[in-house]
Amino acid sequence: MERYNLVVIGAGSGGLVVAAGGTGLGARVALAEKHPIEYTHEGKPVKAMGGDCLNFGCVPSKALIRAGKAAQHAREASRFAIRGIPDPGPQDIARVMDYVRSAQAHISPHDSIERFSGLGVDVMVGAGRLKSAHEVEIGDKTVWGRNIVIATGSRAMIHPIPGLEEAGYLTNETVFQVKELPASLLIMGGGPIGTEIGQSFSRLGSKVTIVSSTPHICPKEDADIVAVLVKKLRHEGVTVIDEAKATKVEKKDGRKVVTIKGKTGAESTITVDEILVATGRRPNIEGLNLEGVGVKHSAKGIETDAKCRTNIPSIWAIGDVAGSYLFTHWAGYQAGVVLTNTLTPLALASCDYDNIPWITYTEPEIAHVGLSENAAKAKGIEYRKFSADFAHNDRAVCDGDFEDYFAKVLVDRKGLILGATIVHPHAGDVLAELVLAKKWGLPLSKIASTIHAYPSLSEITAALGREYRKTGLTPGRKNLLTKIAGWMR
Amino acid sequence: MERYNLVVIGAGSGGLVVAAGGTGLGARVALAEKHPIEYTHEGKPVKAMGGDCLNFGCVPSKALIRAGKAAQHAREASRFAIRGIPDPGPQDIARVMDYVRSAQAHISPHDSIERFSGLGVDVMVGAGRLKSAHEVEIGDKTVWGRNIVIATGSRAMIHPIPGLEEAGYLTNETVFQVKELPASLLIMGGGPIGTEIGQSFSRLGSKVTIVSSTPHICPKEDADIVAVLVKKLRHEGVTVIDEAKATKVEKKDGRKVVTIKGKTGAESTITVDEILVATGRRPNIEGLNLEGVGVKHSAKGIETDAKCRTNIPSIWAIGDVAGSYLFTHWAGYQAGVVLTNTLTPLALASCDYDNIPWITYTEPEIAHVGLSENAAKAKGIEYRKFSADFAHNDRAVCDGDFEDYFAKVLVDRKGLILGATIVHPHAGDVLAELVLAKKWGLPLSKIASTIHAYPSLSEITAALGREYRKTGLTPGRKNLLTKIAGWMR
Repeated sequence: MERYNLVVIGAGSGGLVVAAGGTGLGARVALAEKHPIEYTHEGKPVKAMGGDCLNFGCVPSKALIRAGKAAQHAREASRFAIRGIPDPGPQDIARVMDYVRSAQAHISPHDSIERFSGLGVDVMVGAGRLKSAHEVEIGDKTVWGRNIVIATGSRAMIHPIPGLEEAGYLTNETVFQVKELPASLLIMGGGPIGTEIGQSFSRLGSKVTIVSSTPHICPKEDADIVAVLVKKLRHEGVTVIDEAKATKVEKKDGRKVVTIKGKTGAESTITVDEILVATGRRPNIEGLNLEGVGVKHSAKGIETDAKCRTNIPSIWAIGDVAGSYLFTHWAGYQAGVVLTNTLTPLALASCDYDNIPWITYTEPEIAHVGLSENAAKAKGIEYRKFSADFAHNDRAVCDGDFEDYFAKVLVDRKGLILGATIVHPHAGDVLAELVLAKKWGLPLSKIASTIHAYPSLSEITAALGREYRKTGLTPGRKNLLTKIAGWMR
Repeated sequence: MERYNLVVIGAGSGGLVVAAGGTGLGARVALAEKHPIEYTHEGKPVKAMGGDCLNFGCVPSKALIRAGKAAQHAREASRFAIRGIPDPGPQDIARVMDYVRSAQAHISPHDSIERFSGLGVDVMVGAGRLKSAHEVEIGDKTVWGRNIVIATGSRAMIHPIPGLEEAGYLTNETVFQVKELPASLLIMGGGPIGTEIGQSFSRLGSKVTIVSSTPHICPKEDADIVAVLVKKLRHEGVTVIDEAKATKVEKKDGRKVVTIKGKTGAESTITVDEILVATGRRPNIEGLNLEGVGVKHSAKGIETDAKCRTNIPSIWAIGDVAGSYLFTHWAGYQAGVVLTNTLTPLALASCDYDNIPWITYTEPEIAHVGLSENAAKAKGIEYRKFSADFAHNDRAVCDGDFEDYFAKVLVDRKGLILGATIVHPHAGDVLAELVLAKKWGLPLSKIASTIHAYPSLSEITAALGREYRKTGLTPGRKNLLTKIAGWMR
């Protein structure tokens, strides 16, 4: 039996980083990927791994979002006094998806079997199945690993709704293959996936309705932040229905009649051409033989400690299948933790759960790190809040991107950042400075005394810092300063 | 005679911050502004100060750039498979300038006489003229200041070119008032002002030629960075002529015939409808009576030390008139230095010249902080360089904004940042994280171990950090790791 330092099951964001990093650090690595996807890049076929991120998630959705922006920005050109640009109208979605595929194809060589084989990884096509604490069966082969890393990701959670299967629906795995733009699209689920794709389809010409079971869409974010996004979505023509659930789907004259039960319990129907189900994710734990080997898990995924270790010391789990944060960058980060813990004699690295940023890629974007106000209140954590509006950020004003947009930050007594959220079309880029400051303990006062280029969106962080500093100028101090100034005059 | 802690001459970016900050800290402040500009905001007239920044510089140029982008992005929508958007063609520049004015008007209340009077500043309309080390004449009034701050800014430098005055030309003070789009526009000067306005007019429908006397436009930036911008400008139809100078202008049939002398000495002519002169800046030192009071100055501006103090201990100078860095944020920063030095008994604050970022607002933007490669070589400073391409940044790929764009960073032996430059449409926002890291001594390795949201442009900084880290994995170390991995297998 071939012996490896690491046997990785699943070649998504987490598994690929473990594999590349492992061989880079001198380890022998086997990597099992169930289902590579073929792209064409520069005329050549590429067998890509990459998991949901490259194939059904981050990458295609961001490219779709970009196309939606191109249509919407043309629609809004008159805001900047540009004439001669008509509303582009409903788009040829098949061509848009060709653009999406071109972005995926551009990235695909980086995640390809060829590249990883070249790095020295033994890539094996097939589903990995645990045989023991150190053995994994891949197809008709069994390999031995000093450590085994499970990184099989997640897939769309489909709740059992009467008639849904019969009527048919899209998920994140099929939506990027649509050939015709649905004139109307109902999205079940108001999380980031549903909201991002919903806004994009709306901008490309679909009549979109988002049905969310939570009090507001993007329920992980604070209500004041989400309100800004919802206002924009509605302004663009997206219908957003909160605290509602689809209870039944019927097919009628080739269309889909969805029964919606609202918060009052009253039912109504919406007839649409297509449905996208984006009501959460479920971990890909089936077929791993977790029970057989005794790996603890629940419906949320495989249970791990902060070192990413399961209850079986030689078996680790990272990314979506481990169920904590479902982000590519979290999976990649956990991959680094596992590399340290498996390739150095002492397993000392632990996940830092406090400094993980995320972005919802709607327009405006919502970018967040650390503690939200909701969470702070729920946990009883003391904080001071400072806000700054983009209406006072001169770059945002010149760019016409200011209305309602703002940033807020929660700090402790010393001005150290506990959490920050920004809602603005470029929130994601602006957040990075705050993440760095939070991670390395730079207080708001140090951000305020760092020169920010004028005019730039990043000045919003300095504005937060100035708000913080103002609190140091108490009436008593101001009084004293006024007296001193009088003496010096 | 009224006695003040601070008498400020000039109400631009520097003067306004001194005035607002001074009153905020309890000081009595007089502020002399020669020429307020009137805007209409929410139906009401606003008498705005703000200097070149609000009236003839940053603000109107960024709004014009935004309008140019709206036209260009519509033109490029087919890159994202969006159909139904024709080339918008030449624009109604008068309407575009209305948009520009609306952005200025939005900001104007913040810089208004009304607001500053409300803050407690004694605003006096008139040119300030030094009478002594503590006295300033403003109109028919003379006021006394414990300290005097000169912040009169700069204006376009007009080199004497035969025929130029007769033919007529635009500067940054008049270009935002044009009523008709010139079919062709020659820009004398390839600095940021000329390049930004040139690209914008080109996008709005003018045939633009930039004539630059330096080896390449934006001469403060490294050649490899500028090459990316020049390629894009040329692709958009802008003619860029380096190492050339206008030597003569003649008027002919209502058009302007400009003679250009190239680097070989050969002369050629270009016939255009309009000329913009953007060949540098000169400090506004006339009329201040610097000679009378004995304030040292040169053609570059008023001489100051790092504390912003002139040779006369009670007189200070900040911003463009002091001639070091001609940026709004530098003026604002120096204002803070002067506030500390004039309102606390010991003048201890000094300017930090090493951590000043700047952005050239073309598309792509060029964003820079600290040492450039050129400067490092010229000064003989040892550095290690790391680069990262946006072609490997998945967000940039999805956004279609990756070709040629890159970031580079220069670090010392410990990985501390000496300088960084980014060329990308959103370079300015991405730079802020590196500025913070440079200012507060966070090495590249700490940036690499900070989680960046995927996919985001800000990941480019982590990519720089990874490049740096790779250098730690020498062949010897890799060998050792491989051996250890073998033992552990």
